[in-house]
Amino acid sequence: MEYKFTPKKYYFLYGKAEPALKLKPGDVVETSTVDARGYDSAGKPLSEESKAVEGDYIPLYSNPLVGPFYVEGAEPGDTLSVYIEKVKPNRDYAWSRILPHFGSFTEEGPRRRFLLNEPIEEKVFDWKLDLDRNVAILQLQNSKLKRVEIPLHPFIGSIGVAPRFGRRETALTPGEYGGNMDCIETKEGTTLYLPVFVKGAYLYFGDVHAAQGDGELTGVALEVSADVKLKIDLIKGKSIEWPRLEDEEFIMVAGSSRPLMEALKIAHVELVRWLVEDYGFDKWEAFEILSQVGKCRIGNVVDPCYTVVAKFPKKYLP
Amino acid sequence: MEYKFTPKKYYFLYGKAEPALKLKPGDVVETSTVDARGYDSAGKPLSEESKAVEGDYIPLYSNPLVGPFYVEGAEPGDTLSVYIEKVKPNRDYAWSRILPHFGSFTEEGPRRRFLLNEPIEEKVFDWKLDLDRNVAILQLQNSKLKRVEIPLHPFIGSIGVAPRFGRRETALTPGEYGGNMDCIETKEGTTLYLPVFVKGAYLYFGDVHAAQGDGELTGVALEVSADVKLKIDLIKGKSIEWPRLEDEEFIMVAGSSRPLMEALKIAHVELVRWLVEDYGFDKWEAFEILSQVGKCRIGNVVDPCYTVVAKFPKKYLP
Amino acid sequence: MEYKFTPKKYYFLYGKAEPALKLKPGDVVETSTVDARGYDSAGKPLSEESKAVEGDYIPLYSNPLVGPFYVEGAEPGDTLSVYIEKVKPNRDYAWSRILPHFGSFTEEGPRRRFLLNEPIEEKVFDWKLDLDRNVAILQLQNSKLKRVEIPLHPFIGSIGVAPRFGRRETALTPGEYGGNMDCIETKEGTTLYLPVFVKGAYLYFGDVHAAQGDGELTGVALEVSADVKLKIDLIKGKSIEWPRLEDEEFIMVAGSSRPLMEALKIAHVELVRWLVEDYGFDKWEAFEILSQVGKCRIGNVVDPCYTVVAKFPKKYLP
Amino acid sequence: MEYKFTPKKYYFLYGKAEPALKLKPGDVVETSTVDARGYDSAGKPLSEESKAVEGDYIPLYSNPLVGPFYVEGAEPGDTLSVYIEKVKPNRDYAWSRILPHFGSFTEEGPRRRFLLNEPIEEKVFDWKLDLDRNVAILQLQNSKLKRVEIPLHPFIGSIGVAPRFGRRETALTPGEYGGNMDCIETKEGTTLYLPVFVKGAYLYFGDVHAAQGDGELTGVALEVSADVKLKIDLIKGKSIEWPRLEDEEFIMVAGSSRPLMEALKIAHVELVRWLVEDYGFDKWEAFEILSQVGKCRIGNVVDPCYTVVAKFPKKYLP
Repeated sequence: MEYKFTPKKYYFLYGKAEPALKLKPGDVVETSTVDARGYDSAGKPLSEESKAVEGDYIPLYSNPLVGPFYVEGAEPGDTLSVYIEKVKPNRDYAWSRILPHFGSFTEEGPRRRFLLNEPIEEKVFDWKLDLDRNVAILQLQNSKLKRVEIPLHPFIGSIGVAPRFGRRETALTPGEYGGNMDCIETKEGTTLYLPVFVKGAYLYFGDVHAAQGDGELTGVALEVSADVKLKIDLIKGKSIEWPRLEDEEFIMVAGSSRPLMEALKIAHVELVRWLVEDYGFDKWEAFEILSQVGKCRIGNVVDPCYTVVAKFPKKYLP
Repeated sequence: MEYKFTPKKYYFLYGKAEPALKLKPGDVVETSTVDARGYDSAGKPLSEESKAVEGDYIPLYSNPLVGPFYVEGAEPGDTLSVYIEKVKPNRDYAWSRILPHFGSFTEEGPRRRFLLNEPIEEKVFDWKLDLDRNVAILQLQNSKLKRVEIPLHPFIGSIGVAPRFGRRETALTPGEYGGNMDCIETKEGTTLYLPVFVKGAYLYFGDVHAAQGDGELTGVALEVSADVKLKIDLIKGKSIEWPRLEDEEFIMVAGSSRPLMEALKIAHVELVRWLVEDYGFDKWEAFEILSQVGKCRIGNVVDPCYTVVAKFPKKYLP
Repeated sequence: MEYKFTPKKYYFLYGKAEPALKLKPGDVVETSTVDARGYDSAGKPLSEESKAVEGDYIPLYSNPLVGPFYVEGAEPGDTLSVYIEKVKPNRDYAWSRILPHFGSFTEEGPRRRFLLNEPIEEKVFDWKLDLDRNVAILQLQNSKLKRVEIPLHPFIGSIGVAPRFGRRETALTPGEYGGNMDCIETKEGTTLYLPVFVKGAYLYFGDVHAAQGDGELTGVALEVSADVKLKIDLIKGKSIEWPRLEDEEFIMVAGSSRPLMEALKIAHVELVRWLVEDYGFDKWEAFEILSQVGKCRIGNVVDPCYTVVAKFPKKYLP
Repeated sequence: MEYKFTPKKYYFLYGKAEPALKLKPGDVVETSTVDARGYDSAGKPLSEESKAVEGDYIPLYSNPLVGPFYVEGAEPGDTLSVYIEKVKPNRDYAWSRILPHFGSFTEEGPRRRFLLNEPIEEKVFDWKLDLDRNVAILQLQNSKLKRVEIPLHPFIGSIGVAPRFGRRETALTPGEYGGNMDCIETKEGTTLYLPVFVKGAYLYFGDVHAAQGDGELTGVALEVSADVKLKIDLIKGKSIEWPRLEDEEFIMVAGSSRPLMEALKIAHVELVRWLVEDYGFDKWEAFEILSQVGKCRIGNVVDPCYTVVAKFPKKYLP
């Protein structure tokens, strides 16, 4: 079945909550997301009533999420399959920032101070989006170059399910449940596989980026509202440990941790496991081939956990 | 007022929940904690009814906590003061383990696999406690030495308040709210200062260790149940960013993060801030003196965040 | 002038030594390199006499280097430009290995033991090279897939100059002088810019890889001997801090350090400096655009320093 | 035999060089060192002639070293034993600094820029030494406290032998050969054990600090010239991998690497090996006891490799 879904509430957590909609494997859901600070396609902020707070803790009002989508039949030990059919910015601007105490190049963060140097001053960047031409344009103030125009490659910054233990009550952290991975790979045409830790899975997503470089260096991409369409499926009895992805070219694993090297190791070790379990590779031969043909992309180096995507080209699968 | 408190429920989170007891500044509470797996002074496990689960997520049943203690008058921006009057193991044994996929020397963890080497086999160690002589004794099986006897120095492994944002729904992670810091400094005679992020503060504690080396290398100390007595106070209008501690010799900050270097930086930068704000030091002179006389101890290198304690000797305070 | 150079000696260091050849800016040198263990195009190992040892220390006989090439007119504060005209494997096999105590996935290394787990057993892989079809072929022993064929993309694994201070007396470490960066970017068609720290620059290179995935995960690529042709130029009075690269698509910086995050930071901070100094960007605007369009590739995560290549697309230069 | 040795040359490397003196096992050598910038007991800088440069590379003129002392009979696979009989500052002042681009709290370094924040301004601190009272005194300019007086605990900042491979041509880096470990443990009464990698061992030392806190946070301690007396011995056929130390209370290992966690792992894994090989412990029982009674101190977090000292109390040895 295909649903057009209009969110009434936005969440700031990954975990169990009152389902926004119950889906069956095979269903398609189309909806729209707001940007990382809660602004919608008309440039209006979230109303107070639309901010869902489960329990009476203080939420971090960043990266509002659509959901949760309860998936009928999903049980711990299954894998949720999410095919990304559409990710389309739905307004004519995106904002970006450089912030003190946030981002690995201006003091690590968020909310962590590591240095005795003075923090920087905040900088704001307003990008125009030309959706017909699929580009973003920035006017530069202080550079020789006066204008830069870059292609859009929209993707979902934050998408995940209820975690294994407890809730993750900010939407800023990525982990084994997905979350704020900020990977350009969660784009149109990719299938994302997420471990089901909780009956019903509880899928959420939001924080679409219109464009972003490797590593999301400043900590802020081209933040935008968007129309999103996803097809949900379920792989019963198939258990995975970290988010896996697949597009035309690669099978992939997204590992999230700190330090960066740990995220890289997690992603590759899980990818070797995938090659062994599903494709009949010997562990060491899988590792050897991965080592010679693997690609590796850094999703982000700014969130509370960093994300690395390890990729194996499908043309070398049996 | 002085309370004798018998826990009916044990929690596996830091955050808001139904208060177990409401305290006023100046109150003293005496109670007992169970060990990291929930075994009490009689060696009995937690009953199912006594495991508090707020909401219907899956808890990680590790490090059961006593609390929450609601502190009247505590508001965001205040500092909670917890004087540790007593930490006393109340049974004649403690257990310890070496685990695969847990602990930085046998594969990092928990629940993270980073290596292609084979995991180790689990080892269990049963320590006898002689509470009269204040020592622990281990019989060795495969070593030239047949018996080791070490002094006890009991301390609270996990103690903290409701965090700034959301809940922390395992009791394994330390952070700016305290939590599972596994620092030997939270012992009898220390005052722990915690930031109040939430009205009422919501203090929890548990996971007493009878003894532990620097870094808690295996990930498991001498795990024990204990009698604990705390005196609660409130410093109104005083805001701190990370847990601070004070004993006869030192003022201290406990920073928790990954990688280890980040925890070390957090602790020292916050300690410099303390020296500047409360003791009238110039920032650079504070840093110079700290650099020449400071002590630094590693609490743990095994939890999801590592903890470092930075110490400034009180004899150099004005 | 164009030189055909036949090496008589192979070096195991970066630093000053008796020049093998003196070159002038504009000169081209063509030569051949041996593989990482010193085997040449005929599969013969280095003779004892051809191993250059300057002074009577013990060399690490790994990654034998051709050179040094003294560049007339090169002085500290200049930049050496090395255009890579040809990198062509010149035999029909390449070897690869998975080693204990070497490589971040089987215990870090080299010569560092971090774990209490048992080390793995060494695995050897023999790849056939079909130079006409430009592919490498591996027969698998224990996998469902029996044969894998991958395209060659040969590049120079180790290339650099005499370092700022002292000599680097193994050829395993990369640094600000270049060295064993193991980056696939040092391939045909790339220009490598190296800082000149010492009069004459003293260029060395070797350790060609026929193919390699991102990160060189096992620590060993498709190790091969090769024919190499380089065009040398000099940029007088232009000072750089880290190796820079340029191909048709990108300007790039290769940062090398540990931990991985530090290499990533070095590369990007130097790339911002390049954008500011040579292309008239404001620092913060350069950082914003780099953050939205930058690419970043991990050269290696196995050498004593890791290498990260930060890339800025040339189409966004003024 | 007992030698009074007056250095004529100072070195800026660890490696083979013309021996300053040949010692036999059992010999004692007494000499004096200059401070980290080459100033002696009279406050005079090194003369140009006294700066030893082996080969014509550019030395980093920091931490001038006395030596090398060739030890008769020392061969690769032996262990050099250095008993520190005396370390005594020999002038009435010590200097210290806070530097931009140096030190982990003001931008990491040396010579590495990681941040886009502005660097700090250099600060200089002049400490008076009162050698009779064994204290150092600093006048504060901008703090409420006007004067701080701290006890001296002089130790050798940099001490080591020729490394396994090549030379280490700055005296700033610590490693498996010892070097610039900046550990307060290399003080009077400690025996330092160093691996012999090269016939003759080639012992060097220098860079005495009059006092220093854990981690050497600013990167600069109380830098001073000193009188030093060492007793040299040789343990034939005993091979170690990292510097070991022993005083009245502890056996210790100094591990040096980056990131900090790696230095910590190296030190503890080598300490377990020591417990197993020399004291008859089972590996896992050694690890368990170390985990419960071990002490761990951070030598430095500012040098090109960081140093961690892992300690096992001698009272628990069989």
